Amino acid sequence: MRRALALIVLPLLFRSLIFGQEAAPSAEHAQTVARVLLALILILLGAKLGGEIVERFHQPAVLGELIVGMLLGNLSLLGFHGLDFLKNEEILALLAELGVILLLFEVGLESDIVEMKAVGLSAFSVATAGVIAPFLLGWGVSSWLLSKAHRLVHIYVGAVLCATSVGITARVLRDLGKLATPEARIILGAAVIDDVLGLLVLAIVSGLIRAADRGTATVPIERLVWIIAKSVGFLFGTIWIGQRLSPRLFHLASKLRVHGMLLVTSLSFCFLMAYIAHAIGLATIVGAFAAGLLLDQVHYRDFLERGEHRLEEALRPLTTILVPVFFVLMGIRVDLSSFGRTEILGFAALVTLAAIFGKQICGFVVWERGVNRMAIGLGMIPRGEVGLIVAGIGMTLVVQGERIVTPPIFSAIVIMVMATTLLTPPLLKWAFLRTAVIERTLSKSACDGERA
Amino acid sequence: MRRALALIVLPLLFRSLIFGQEAAPSAEHAQTVARVLLALILILLGAKLGGEIVERFHQPAVLGELIVGMLLGNLSLLGFHGLDFLKNEEILALLAELGVILLLFEVGLESDIVEMKAVGLSAFSVATAGVIAPFLLGWGVSSWLLSKAHRLVHIYVGAVLCATSVGITARVLRDLGKLATPEARIILGAAVIDDVLGLLVLAIVSGLIRAADRGTATVPIERLVWIIAKSVGFLFGTIWIGQRLSPRLFHLASKLRVHGMLLVTSLSFCFLMAYIAHAIGLATIVGAFAAGLLLDQVHYRDFLERGEHRLEEALRPLTTILVPVFFVLMGIRVDLSSFGRTEILGFAALVTLAAIFGKQICGFVVWERGVNRMAIGLGMIPRGEVGLIVAGIGMTLVVQGERIVTPPIFSAIVIMVMATTLLTPPLLKWAFLRTAVIERTLSKSACDGERA
Repeated sequence: MRRALALIVLPLLFRSLIFGQEAAPSAEHAQTVARVLLALILILLGAKLGGEIVERFHQPAVLGELIVGMLLGNLSLLGFHGLDFLKNEEILALLAELGVILLLFEVGLESDIVEMKAVGLSAFSVATAGVIAPFLLGWGVSSWLLSKAHRLVHIYVGAVLCATSVGITARVLRDLGKLATPEARIILGAAVIDDVLGLLVLAIVSGLIRAADRGTATVPIERLVWIIAKSVGFLFGTIWIGQRLSPRLFHLASKLRVHGMLLVTSLSFCFLMAYIAHAIGLATIVGAFAAGLLLDQVHYRDFLERGEHRLEEALRPLTTILVPVFFVLMGIRVDLSSFGRTEILGFAALVTLAAIFGKQICGFVVWERGVNRMAIGLGMIPRGEVGLIVAGIGMTLVVQGERIVTPPIFSAIVIMVMATTLLTPPLLKWAFLRTAVIERTLSKSACDGERA
Repeated sequence: MRRALALIVLPLLFRSLIFGQEAAPSAEHAQTVARVLLALILILLGAKLGGEIVERFHQPAVLGELIVGMLLGNLSLLGFHGLDFLKNEEILALLAELGVILLLFEVGLESDIVEMKAVGLSAFSVATAGVIAPFLLGWGVSSWLLSKAHRLVHIYVGAVLCATSVGITARVLRDLGKLATPEARIILGAAVIDDVLGLLVLAIVSGLIRAADRGTATVPIERLVWIIAKSVGFLFGTIWIGQRLSPRLFHLASKLRVHGMLLVTSLSFCFLMAYIAHAIGLATIVGAFAAGLLLDQVHYRDFLERGEHRLEEALRPLTTILVPVFFVLMGIRVDLSSFGRTEILGFAALVTLAAIFGKQICGFVVWERGVNRMAIGLGMIPRGEVGLIVAGIGMTLVVQGERIVTPPIFSAIVIMVMATTLLTPPLLKWAFLRTAVIERTLSKSACDGERA
């Protein structure tokens, strides 16, 4: 009885707190703070509840966070608009971005640069195949179904399918405890290279569309060369400089005796690399991953000797709070109402299939033996926020006064991004589980053979 | 030589990264992320460097953070405008607010509610005296020096002096390891009550000014009664409900097995209390402090038993990163150019003295024996952001079409806030040190006496 009463009274109280607020001093900032506090409470508790529920169904926690986000973000479909602010709160978007930066930094810390280099060729093959195949498939599907659309629409659909969002896959690999496997190294390396290739595809497509708008049909080649040069320059340059600079940086920092220097120095290094990556045009998370990759326990042994916590331990509380913000917010931004539009569902379904099968070729171009090729193909599936960014750019491009990417096409792309993001966690988990079962069966039949 | 070269090249590189950026996809958000990353690097490294330097002069680290902030925020005086964005970045302001909320939550966790109640009478006396005396002194100084100003200006100056910003004092007490002393409990308790009294003063002053604007001279009494009722209601109501609710909340939460539940539940509780405090019109940090006070290790023993970190340990990395953002930003917002205006320095100096001496009466109304009365008086000095908020409200109030608080008066108020904030850390440290020396001398002379 008392519990039932609380269930009735608390939401009412909550409602009146949201809507019945009086204007406070320095009103606008204070209101923002209040909204963000409320949003954080909902996101954090929702994330944990969602994670708990899907873990009981043996799924990675991130899937629950995405679903909780979808629920929070689509209450407006039921007529409740009290949470609509979650979608547009710039500050939540920034906390989410910090969350995924820290996640990739953490993943980078758990990765070893020597082992990454060892799978470099496979990562490069995977990334290249994972750009070409989905591009061709997307182009094909678009040409077939949207035969009346502008030629550039097909290129745009193909370009969107090239993207890989490594956030989801990295998180699932961590949830499953598979970060130390060769599959994880290949996927992460390929995702970094994919980001560079994606930049290139984006530049080509934007160039083509701008050229079409002017009536020509060429992309300045020197622009493409410059993009390749600076991206590759970043990857190799920062790794080369970083490997030499970071030990000195940490040695210098260790001379300061104030509390928390290890965490502050490491985060500053991570943020700096993320910033440089951004300045070059790459994703911030590529920089953060590179920063994590470069840091090694040797660099900060001075800190450990004087009793500071290990960096991984100090990072944990930060990622515990910020990482779910990223994934719940990704769910919040999913607009379920686009699923209701039957006229686009057919196209959306085929684009989604193209997105999924296009990346499955990745598993076949791995050079190492004995790796789980299926897991690699599945790990490359999610398009996530990268796909949405590319899709969003397409929306703004105009050929001869007309937007060539119409809202229905965009909605179909959004559905594809959602589907690939939601399907990856269970598929990836299944791929790893499946191998484990096969291995167990094989070793069992081997034993049986010996016994016989 | 190589080091000298690095000193030349790195800033140049940095400069080109700030100014030479190309527009990236989804430009505005990405630019914000880049700015915030840059700001965080500067703030975090600057805070640690500043803290280190002042600690070598045996001063609390927070003083160094304030000074570094003042340097970063006033580079524009030297003609460098590349960091001006730090002052107006809404997202930094929010991270800072989260920082001070977590600081007061942490301080609340280290405080004991029973011990707080034991000094309740003294805290109430200190808060009351610390509102009345500065109000009268401020009024007096203003009447004397600004004899031609509107009568309400004097009330406004008095009202600004009532505020106490507990953030600085709490931080200094923690830096000095004095949070467990009766002085700390009295100051923290008084600061909470002061916040309620401050609300009241603010309501009276705003009411008087609005009444003067309409030509009447009364404040609706029912409004004041309502403010008192809801503030007192919050303090006692939430403590009463919280004490009963939090054990259940944590018991419920402990049934979820996902990682990080203790931290997430505690932070959600803290944010909820901060939100409620804000909704009532109190400062968010009062709610956060109350949340920390209510939480006790018994409430989350279930979590500890299954091996989660102690809450204080999990909070540490979060406060290590976010708390300096608050204090550096406080420094950044100090506008040193107001010091250059000699015509207001006399008024500013007297208002500052009124602010300092007005709070010294606090030490004399403590009922306990053997406490460091000087430390209590000094601990109540800083006006910090609370004073600035009240001052800012005054700026917006208009009597019969004219702003009664002119920019020079406002600048003087800002100088007073800065001075009280910067003086508190060294003064408070000195007060505690002084007692220690006296005690040592006394016990030494007692020993000498015995020996003789």
